[in-house]
Amino acid sequence: MEDILRKLWNHEISVEEAMKELKYFPFKEIGEAKIDFYRNIYRKIPEAIYGEGKSISQIKEMAEEMMQHHKVFITRASKEVYEKIGIEGAKYYKDAKMIVIGEREKINDGYIAVITAGSSDRQVAEEAAVTAYELGNDVERIYDVGVAGLHRLLVYREKIEGANVVIAVAGMDGILPTVVSNFVSSPIIALPTSHGYGTGINGVAALMSMLNSCSPGIVVVNIDNGFGAGVAAHLINSKK
Amino acid sequence: MEDILRKLWNHEISVEEAMKELKYFPFKEIGEAKIDFYRNIYRKIPEAIYGEGKSISQIKEMAEEMMQHHKVFITRASKEVYEKIGIEGAKYYKDAKMIVIGEREKINDGYIAVITAGSSDRQVAEEAAVTAYELGNDVERIYDVGVAGLHRLLVYREKIEGANVVIAVAGMDGILPTVVSNFVSSPIIALPTSHGYGTGINGVAALMSMLNSCSPGIVVVNIDNGFGAGVAAHLINSKK
Amino acid sequence: MEDILRKLWNHEISVEEAMKELKYFPFKEIGEAKIDFYRNIYRKIPEAIYGEGKSISQIKEMAEEMMQHHKVFITRASKEVYEKIGIEGAKYYKDAKMIVIGEREKINDGYIAVITAGSSDRQVAEEAAVTAYELGNDVERIYDVGVAGLHRLLVYREKIEGANVVIAVAGMDGILPTVVSNFVSSPIIALPTSHGYGTGINGVAALMSMLNSCSPGIVVVNIDNGFGAGVAAHLINSKK
Amino acid sequence: MEDILRKLWNHEISVEEAMKELKYFPFKEIGEAKIDFYRNIYRKIPEAIYGEGKSISQIKEMAEEMMQHHKVFITRASKEVYEKIGIEGAKYYKDAKMIVIGEREKINDGYIAVITAGSSDRQVAEEAAVTAYELGNDVERIYDVGVAGLHRLLVYREKIEGANVVIAVAGMDGILPTVVSNFVSSPIIALPTSHGYGTGINGVAALMSMLNSCSPGIVVVNIDNGFGAGVAAHLINSKK
Amino acid sequence: MEDILRKLWNHEISVEEAMKELKYFPFKEIGEAKIDFYRNIYRKIPEAIYGEGKSISQIKEMAEEMMQHHKVFITRASKEVYEKIGIEGAKYYKDAKMIVIGEREKINDGYIAVITAGSSDRQVAEEAAVTAYELGNDVERIYDVGVAGLHRLLVYREKIEGANVVIAVAGMDGILPTVVSNFVSSPIIALPTSHGYGTGINGVAALMSMLNSCSPGIVVVNIDNGFGAGVAAHLINSKK
Amino acid sequence: MEDILRKLWNHEISVEEAMKELKYFPFKEIGEAKIDFYRNIYRKIPEAIYGEGKSISQIKEMAEEMMQHHKVFITRASKEVYEKIGIEGAKYYKDAKMIVIGEREKINDGYIAVITAGSSDRQVAEEAAVTAYELGNDVERIYDVGVAGLHRLLVYREKIEGANVVIAVAGMDGILPTVVSNFVSSPIIALPTSHGYGTGINGVAALMSMLNSCSPGIVVVNIDNGFGAGVAAHLINSKK
Amino acid sequence: MEDILRKLWNHEISVEEAMKELKYFPFKEIGEAKIDFYRNIYRKIPEAIYGEGKSISQIKEMAEEMMQHHKVFITRASKEVYEKIGIEGAKYYKDAKMIVIGEREKINDGYIAVITAGSSDRQVAEEAAVTAYELGNDVERIYDVGVAGLHRLLVYREKIEGANVVIAVAGMDGILPTVVSNFVSSPIIALPTSHGYGTGINGVAALMSMLNSCSPGIVVVNIDNGFGAGVAAHLINSKK
Amino acid sequence: MEDILRKLWNHEISVEEAMKELKYFPFKEIGEAKIDFYRNIYRKIPEAIYGEGKSISQIKEMAEEMMQHHKVFITRASKEVYEKIGIEGAKYYKDAKMIVIGEREKINDGYIAVITAGSSDRQVAEEAAVTAYELGNDVERIYDVGVAGLHRLLVYREKIEGANVVIAVAGMDGILPTVVSNFVSSPIIALPTSHGYGTGINGVAALMSMLNSCSPGIVVVNIDNGFGAGVAAHLINSKK
Repeated sequence: MEDILRKLWNHEISVEEAMKELKYFPFKEIGEAKIDFYRNIYRKIPEAIYGEGKSISQIKEMAEEMMQHHKVFITRASKEVYEKIGIEGAKYYKDAKMIVIGEREKINDGYIAVITAGSSDRQVAEEAAVTAYELGNDVERIYDVGVAGLHRLLVYREKIEGANVVIAVAGMDGILPTVVSNFVSSPIIALPTSHGYGTGINGVAALMSMLNSCSPGIVVVNIDNGFGAGVAAHLINSKK
Repeated sequence: MEDILRKLWNHEISVEEAMKELKYFPFKEIGEAKIDFYRNIYRKIPEAIYGEGKSISQIKEMAEEMMQHHKVFITRASKEVYEKIGIEGAKYYKDAKMIVIGEREKINDGYIAVITAGSSDRQVAEEAAVTAYELGNDVERIYDVGVAGLHRLLVYREKIEGANVVIAVAGMDGILPTVVSNFVSSPIIALPTSHGYGTGINGVAALMSMLNSCSPGIVVVNIDNGFGAGVAAHLINSKK
Repeated sequence: MEDILRKLWNHEISVEEAMKELKYFPFKEIGEAKIDFYRNIYRKIPEAIYGEGKSISQIKEMAEEMMQHHKVFITRASKEVYEKIGIEGAKYYKDAKMIVIGEREKINDGYIAVITAGSSDRQVAEEAAVTAYELGNDVERIYDVGVAGLHRLLVYREKIEGANVVIAVAGMDGILPTVVSNFVSSPIIALPTSHGYGTGINGVAALMSMLNSCSPGIVVVNIDNGFGAGVAAHLINSKK
Repeated sequence: MEDILRKLWNHEISVEEAMKELKYFPFKEIGEAKIDFYRNIYRKIPEAIYGEGKSISQIKEMAEEMMQHHKVFITRASKEVYEKIGIEGAKYYKDAKMIVIGEREKINDGYIAVITAGSSDRQVAEEAAVTAYELGNDVERIYDVGVAGLHRLLVYREKIEGANVVIAVAGMDGILPTVVSNFVSSPIIALPTSHGYGTGINGVAALMSMLNSCSPGIVVVNIDNGFGAGVAAHLINSKK
Repeated sequence: MEDILRKLWNHEISVEEAMKELKYFPFKEIGEAKIDFYRNIYRKIPEAIYGEGKSISQIKEMAEEMMQHHKVFITRASKEVYEKIGIEGAKYYKDAKMIVIGEREKINDGYIAVITAGSSDRQVAEEAAVTAYELGNDVERIYDVGVAGLHRLLVYREKIEGANVVIAVAGMDGILPTVVSNFVSSPIIALPTSHGYGTGINGVAALMSMLNSCSPGIVVVNIDNGFGAGVAAHLINSKK
Repeated sequence: MEDILRKLWNHEISVEEAMKELKYFPFKEIGEAKIDFYRNIYRKIPEAIYGEGKSISQIKEMAEEMMQHHKVFITRASKEVYEKIGIEGAKYYKDAKMIVIGEREKINDGYIAVITAGSSDRQVAEEAAVTAYELGNDVERIYDVGVAGLHRLLVYREKIEGANVVIAVAGMDGILPTVVSNFVSSPIIALPTSHGYGTGINGVAALMSMLNSCSPGIVVVNIDNGFGAGVAAHLINSKK
Repeated sequence: MEDILRKLWNHEISVEEAMKELKYFPFKEIGEAKIDFYRNIYRKIPEAIYGEGKSISQIKEMAEEMMQHHKVFITRASKEVYEKIGIEGAKYYKDAKMIVIGEREKINDGYIAVITAGSSDRQVAEEAAVTAYELGNDVERIYDVGVAGLHRLLVYREKIEGANVVIAVAGMDGILPTVVSNFVSSPIIALPTSHGYGTGINGVAALMSMLNSCSPGIVVVNIDNGFGAGVAAHLINSKK
Repeated sequence: MEDILRKLWNHEISVEEAMKELKYFPFKEIGEAKIDFYRNIYRKIPEAIYGEGKSISQIKEMAEEMMQHHKVFITRASKEVYEKIGIEGAKYYKDAKMIVIGEREKINDGYIAVITAGSSDRQVAEEAAVTAYELGNDVERIYDVGVAGLHRLLVYREKIEGANVVIAVAGMDGILPTVVSNFVSSPIIALPTSHGYGTGINGVAALMSMLNSCSPGIVVVNIDNGFGAGVAAHLINSKK
C-alpha cells in the first residue's frame, strides 16, 4: 500500500487507478463514519476526532482504526472518556481536554509561542499548544499577559520575539495580537475565544477586532478553534 | 424671565407655573421646529443644530434665534454653509466641519486630551475637540499615535497622563483606549469611528472592541459621535 | 520597593530598569495566572477577580496574594464561595454577588447616584454601587423608578440632581438615562442590563437605545458591566 | 357590479361565482400590474401606488384606472411627478411627498395626534398625517417635542390626551412613545424613522427600543412606514 | 386621596402639589420595588407583576399591596406559585400561566378575536386572551388555523370579521396577520412567537415578516409579548 | 366524502360548498388543535406532528385521528414516546427520531441520494432520508464524505450521479452541495445543519455559504429542516 | 474531442487522461478568465457571464468563445451592452436585462409558472423566466398577484396547479410561496427579492420568511437570484 | 542613527533612551500624520499609505518622506494619482491599484501561489500578489479556477502543491481554500472578497464559510484585505 500511496503522491498514478489497486485504501468505513487516512498523506496532518457528543465506544472504535495508520487526536474529551476508553499509550491533556495517541517526533529546533490575554482563555490556548506540541513543535506558553496590564507582556518580549510562530489567544476586546505585532516579525495567528467575562457575543467582538487589526499581516482562525490554530502554526513552522 | 428660570431651577415653582408666567419661555417655535433653551439651563449644554440635510435659511433662522440666548453649535456644516449664512461673529472650524457662534469662557486650568489612532479619525476627533474647547475646556490634540506603532504613543505619555479627561478616538480594531488605560488614571471616553480602511462594518468592530475592553472604567459613545464625546468630556471636566 | 515604583511613576526609571531591581515586582505568578499589582499603581484601581468559573481554592490563592498589596474585589461570587473561602475581614454583598477585602477610604463628600428602571436591574446596579462605595465614594440608591411610571422618577429629582455622577441602569428599552438627562448637569453613565422581561436580545435593545440617545453627553458601558460602571464613576468622582 | 360585490361581502356568493358574473371585477390588469379594487371593499382602505422607481406614465395609468373606483394615494412622489402627471383634482402634499386624488369624507369628530421627537422625523410623520387626514380623520400635528427637552412635550399634554389615537414618531433612541404613554390612555402607534443623526443602523435602534418598551400596550409599525401608521390609526379611529 | 387624584387627572393640581397632600400616593415602596398605582389612573391599565425570577413571598407582598387599589396581573407564573401564594379570590389561568386577582367588569358588547397559526403558539395567545378578557373585553379564540392549511382559516371568516380587534399570533414565517387582513376591516395586532419548530431565530423571522407585511395597517408587538398585545387590543376596543 | 373531495379537487365545487356537505371534512378539531387532512389532498403530503414539547397523550390523540385518513409522521420523537404511545403498526426510526404510521407505497424506480459531509450531520440527514423513503422514494445514503477529504466523495460519484434528486447535508462551511454540483445534473437540495464543531452560529455559516453558492441551480431549505428537505425531494421525484 | 468527452462522462478515462489528449479541452483561457465548457457537459447547464462591472469588449470576447460550444447567457446586461456587442443572433430581453445567444430547444410539453407578489419583483422574475425559457422550458407568467389582494391569486389557481414547477417571487414579507403551497402539489421554488418598499433589509425579511415557511417542501434560492431559480426549475422540469 | 536602532533591536537600550539620542527617530510628523519608520525595523514590513480619500499632495508628502527610509506601498490608488504624483522610480500596478516605490530584493527561491475562484476576485488578488512580490517573494498567479468548475483547479495542482504558501481568494460561498486544502500541505491563507454576484452581504458569507472550514489549518484575513494577505504570506515565506 505504501508504494501506491507514494506513487499517488508523486502523480505517477491517478486517484482512480490507486483505488483499483487498494483494498484498504485512504479511508475506511466504521459504521457510517468514514475514517480519512488520506488527509494525513496529502495535508500531512491527521483527521481529528471531535469528542463532544460522541459515545465512548464510537470514539474508541474510530481511534483504534486510526492509530494503526497515524497519530490520533481526540478533542473536547472529558476525563471520563479518557479513563474508560482503555487504549494503551493514550495520553490525556487535562487542561486541553485532549486525548493523544501515538509518538511525537520533534520537527525542528524552533518553537511556537502561545500567549493568552487572560486566565480564562486557557483551555482554548492549551488545545492549540498541545496540538502543535504533539505534531512535533516545541511550545512556549506565556499566559495571562493581557493588555490591561501591558507591562506583563513586555517582560516576555524576548521569548516572544524568538518564536518561529506566535499564537495570540484573547477573548473580550481581542487586542492582544495587535499589541504583540509591535515587536515581533514572526507570523502571528490570532485565536479569539468565547471565554472571559463581559458581553462580547461569545467571542464575536474579539474576532471582529482581530480581523480589523490596524497591524497588517495578522491571520485569524475561528472562535475557540484551538486545534485549527495549532495545526496552522505547525504548517508554518514545518515549512522548510 | 431670568428670575422665573432661576426659581424653576431652585424648585420654587413648577414647570407648569413657570410656563404661565412666561411668554417667551424655554422653547420657541420656528416653523414647526421648537428651539430648546431649557436644555442650556438644566443640562448646562446648549442644543446643537445638525447641519446635514438642512437648508441654509433653515439653519440661519434657528441659529439667529438661539444666539440670543446661548452659544450656538452647528455640526456637519460645509464651508459653503458657513460662507452663505452671514452671521457676524460666526467661526468656522474646517476640520471639524463645525460653525460656532458666541464667546468662549474658559472653565478651569486643566485640559482634555484628544488622541487618535489614525489620520483618518481626524474629522470625528476634531468635532470632539472643538466642542470641548468651545464649551470652555483647554484641549491637547495628539493624533495618529495608533497602536500598530505603539512607541508613538509612549512618547506622549506624560501629556496624556496630565489630562483631566482623555478622549481616545479609533476606527478599525478600536484598541487605542484600552492601551491608553495602562498608564493613565483619568476617565477615558472611547469614541469609535467609521473611518479608516478595512471592513469593520462602519465602526461596529471598533465599538464592540471598546465595549468589551478588558480594562474596566472605559466609557463609550456612539460611532462618529464627536459632539457627544466633547460634551461628555466637558461635563466631567467641569465637575467641581 | 515603594521607592522604585515611585520612580517608575515619575518616569525616573524605565519599566525594564525597574524590573531588574525588583524581585517582587508589579505582578506575580500564581500558577499560570499573573496577578497585576501595577494596575493599582498606574490606573489607581485594582484588578478584580471574576468569580464565575473559578474554583474556590483558585480564588482564595489569588485573593490572599492580592490582599497584601491592595483592596480585593471578587465579582460574580456565590454565597457558597464566600462561606468557604475563609479569609478574615472579607465582606459579602449578597445583592451584588461580590466579596470585598480591605478597608474603605472615603474620598470626598460628594455622592454617586445609582438609579434603576426596574426591580430586575438590581443585581447589576448593586455591582456598580458596591464597587463605587468600596472605592471610597458615597452612594445613593434610587431603584425601580422606570420611565413607564415617570412620576416615580420626578419625586427623586433633587437627590439625583445633587449627585456628582449618575449611573442610570436599565434593560428593555433603555430610556432611563435619556429621561434623567433632562434635569441633571452631572455626567451620566448608562448601564444596560440583560435582565427584565421581553425580548431585547439580552440587552442589545437597551444598549442601542443608550448609544443613540438624542441627549448628548451620555456615556455607555457594556451590558451588565456593573463593575465597569462603578469604576468609571469612581474615576470621574475622584477627579480633583 | 355593486350588487354582486355586496353579495360577496355578505357571503351570499363565493369569490368564484362573483368572478363569473363580473367582467370588470375587483382587479384589473394594466400591463402586468393588477390593480386591486377589492382591498378597498373588504379592508376598506385603497391600495396605494408607491411612486419611487415608477415612471410618470406608469403612475398616471394606474392612477387613472383607480380613481374611477376609489380614492388614490401615491406615496414617495416628487414634485416633478405631480407637475407632470396632469390629473385634474390631484392634490400635492409637499412635506409628505404624496399625491392624493379624490374627495375626503370626515368620519367623526375625534382626532388623531401625530407627534414627533425631532424635526428630521417630519417627512415620515407627514406621510402618516396626510394618510390619516385623507381617509377622513382630523389630525393634530405636534412636532419636535423630543424627550431630550421633555418639558416641550408636557406643554402639549392636554392636546395629546384628547386624541383618539396617538402616532408617536421618533428616530435615534425611539423613546418618545414610551414617555407619552405615561399620560395618555389612548392607543399609541410607535413609528420609528431612519432619519436623525447618529448611528442607529437606519432606524433599527429606534425600532428595537419601541418593541421593547417597558410600557405595555404600545404597538409598532415598520421603519419609515408613515403610510402604514396612518392606515392603522384610521382603522382604530373608525372603529364604531 | 380619590379627590386629589381626580384633580390631578383634571390638571387642577400639579404632580408636585398632589404629592405634598398625599401620604399614600400613586406609588408605594415594597423593599426597593416601587409599586405604581399611578399607571392605573392615567394609562387606565394596571402595572403587571412579571413572575419569572421572583420569589413567591416577593410576588405575594407586591400583589397584596396592589390588590387594595386595582386589579392584579401576574404573568409567567407557575402553578406552584399559584398554589402557594394563598390569596383569596386569585384565579389561575393554566394555559396562559397567569394569576389574576380582582373582579372583571365587561366594557362593551363587542369582542376581540385571538387567532393562532399553530398549536405551539398557544401559551402566548392565551396570555393575550386572558389579559384582554380580564380587562373587560369578550374574547373569541380561534386556534391552529395556520396558513399552511388556509381553508381552516376561511371556515372562521365570519367570526373573525365580526371582531372589533383581531390579535393574530404566529411563529415561524409569521404570515397569518397578512392573510387575515384580506377579509377584515378591523385593526389587526400581529403577535410574533418564538415557539414553533424550525429555525426562525427565536421569532425574529416572524417579527420581520410582520413588520414588512405588504398589507398596510397591521401593527406589531414584541416577540412573545402576549400581555402587551392584550393591553393594546383593550385600549383599542375600549375607545369610545 | 371521497366524492366531494374529488369534486373539490376538480373545481366542480367550491370550498364553501364542500364544507356544507361534509360533517367530517378536511380538518378536525382535537382540543383546540385542528388536524388538517386537506393538505394531504391538495399538496399530496400529510401534515406532520412535531413531537418536541408535546405530551404523549396529545401526540397519541392527534396520531390516532390522522391515521384514519393518511400516513402519519411524528418528528423529533424520543424513544420513550414511541414506547409509550401504543399504536399498532407504528415504526420507530431511532437515528431520525421519527415515528411513522401507515403503509409505504413505492412511487417509482429512481432513487434519492442523501449525502452528508460529517458524521454529526447524521440525525438531520436521517430525518430527510426517512421522510423521503416513507413517502415512497427509494433512498441511497452516502454519509461522511465531506469535502476536507474530497476523495471520499469521488468514490461514490456514480451512485450520486444516478440519483433523481440529491440532498446534500452539511454544517460548518456548508460547501458539500457546491462540490457535488460539479458532477451531477440532477436537482440538488442543500440542507444546512447546526451540528458539527466550530462556531458557525448554529448553522448560519453553512446556510449562507449554500445560498451564495457559485454553482447555479442549488436550492436550499432551512437549518436542520430534514423533514422539509425530504418532502421537497419527494415532490421533485414524484413529478411525472 | 466529442469522443473523449463522452468517455470522460462514462468514466472510461480519468480527467487527467482526458486532458493529455485534448488541446482544446473543457476550459479555455481568455486573458486570465477561464471559460468553463465542462459545466455544460456535466451539469448540463452552461456557465453564465455576469454582465455588471465587465467591459463590453471583455463580455464580447468571452461570449464569442463560448458560443462556439454552447448557448450563452449574459445577465445584468444593459441595453447599451446589447447594442454595442455586435454579435449576430443575440437576443435582448429588456425586462430581464439579459442577452441570450444560441438556439432554444424545447424540452417537454409541461410548463413552469413564474408568479410574483408585486410589480416591483418583475426584473428578478423575468431573469428567472427567461433563463428557464431559453433552457427549453415553456413558461407561464402570472405577475402581481400578491397576497395582500389574495383573490387575485385564486383567479389563476388552475394555471398554477397545472405547472410542473412553480417559481414564487416576492419581496417584503415573502409570504407568496407559502400561500401558493396550499393548492399545488408541484415543487415550489421561493425566490426572495430586495425590491419593493418598506424596510426588509434588502430582502432578508422575505428570505427568512421563506426559509421558515410553515408549509414543508418549499425550497429557496438567494435574494434576487433569478438566474439560479430559473436553472433550478429547469433541472427539476427536465428530470425524466 | 543606524547604530542606535541596532542597539534598540538588540535590547541594549530602551525605547526611552533611544529617543533621547535621536533627533530623527522612528517616526516623523507630517502635518498631524506621524510616519512610522519603526514598524519597518521591528515588524520588518513598512507602513502602507491607504490612498482612498487622501489628496495627491498629502500622499506625495508622506511618500517622499518614507522613501528615504524604506520601500513605499500606496494602496487603493487610482491611475490619476500615479500620473500626478511625480515621483521618479514609482511603479504603477493597474490591476492592483497600487503604487510602489523602491527596489525589490528577492528573498528566496520558493514562491507564493495566489489563486482565485472567479474573475471578479482579481483586484483584491492582485493587491495580495503585488504586495508579496514587492516584498521579495516570487508569485504564481492562478486565477478563475473556482470550485463550480472544479476540474479547472485540478489542472494546476502541481503548481499549487509546489508553493511555500497559498493565498486562496474567493467571494460568494468562499469554498476555494477548503477544496485546495485537500491536496496541499503548505499554509493556506483564505482571503474573502466582497466582489462577485449574489447577495453574500459584501463578503460576509465567504468570510464565515472560510472561518468555519471543516479543514483545519486554514487561516483567514479580513474581507478584501489583499495587502494584509500579502504581508502575512511574506512573513511566512521569509521564515528561516
